[in-house]
Amino acid sequence: MISFFEYNWQVRDEWFDWCNQLSNHELVKSRTGGVGSILYTLFHIIDVEYSWIRGIQGKEDVVINYADYNTVEKVRSLSDGFRNEIVEFLKNNLEDKKVKAVSVPWDEGKYTVEEILHHIIAHEIHHIGQLSIWSRELELNPVPAHFIGREYKSMHSF
Amino acid sequence: MISFFEYNWQVRDEWFDWCNQLSNHELVKSRTGGVGSILYTLFHIIDVEYSWIRGIQGKEDVVINYADYNTVEKVRSLSDGFRNEIVEFLKNNLEDKKVKAVSVPWDEGKYTVEEILHHIIAHEIHHIGQLSIWSRELELNPVPAHFIGREYKSMHSF
Repeated sequence: MISFFEYNWQVRDEWFDWCNQLSNHELVKSRTGGVGSILYTLFHIIDVEYSWIRGIQGKEDVVINYADYNTVEKVRSLSDGFRNEIVEFLKNNLEDKKVKAVSVPWDEGKYTVEEILHHIIAHEIHHIGQLSIWSRELELNPVPAHFIGREYKSMHSF
Repeated sequence: MISFFEYNWQVRDEWFDWCNQLSNHELVKSRTGGVGSILYTLFHIIDVEYSWIRGIQGKEDVVINYADYNTVEKVRSLSDGFRNEIVEFLKNNLEDKKVKAVSVPWDEGKYTVEEILHHIIAHEIHHIGQLSIWSRELELNPVPAHFIGREYKSMHSF
């Protein structure tokens, strides 16, 4: 499970690098499908991951305004900041918590921690797949999506 | 890990149902990004999953010709057939095999079974994300991608 987080974070950082070749206008431009723009996709992935990780911990949801994160630098910095908190949580005794049932304010269901971690992982990979189509529509190579054949930065080194 | 396979298979089957609203012309039509068409994306996901699962077992790679699977019915039937074999493999003592190193003819690397299973899972979710963009470009609702809030068919019931 942890290795999917390491994968998602590495791929996400590569997409941040990829964004540097585009103007801010292209990054925030409205596109068909997904959540509607490249930058908002990255923001949304981060927001959803953080919200669920806080939800698992029984912490209050923090509303983050996209309007305050209107450049790739700001979104990347948001990602880095939240990641530090998320790493601290995931590193510590995750195994003991997996079957715990969790409720969150924005969803009527009750899910185990394990289900929520699966949800966060699939959510990011799905949205990254969407970015890859928009990338080709811009006639740019997308960030490669393969899981194998990468050197990962271990969660324990964050 | 198994629950990601159950997720992918359920979402894949929902995409097969989704395909029924489109003509074969639309399904095989060339599109920008990914592997180039809706039907070929589904075929490719199935082909890659099956090849790696055979690779893990040390079985010879089977080359499947897309030309022989030019309708959604044929691709779905391919998926169902392979799935039966894959279920049999995944159900049996997967835990013992996870750290085993595997080589396959189409890749120079050597990977553990666990890495390969992660690769297969991420590969499918990524390509399904691409379908969701094409779906919106066709002005159709994509299959929902959420992991939580679904009723899964257990692998043991296949």
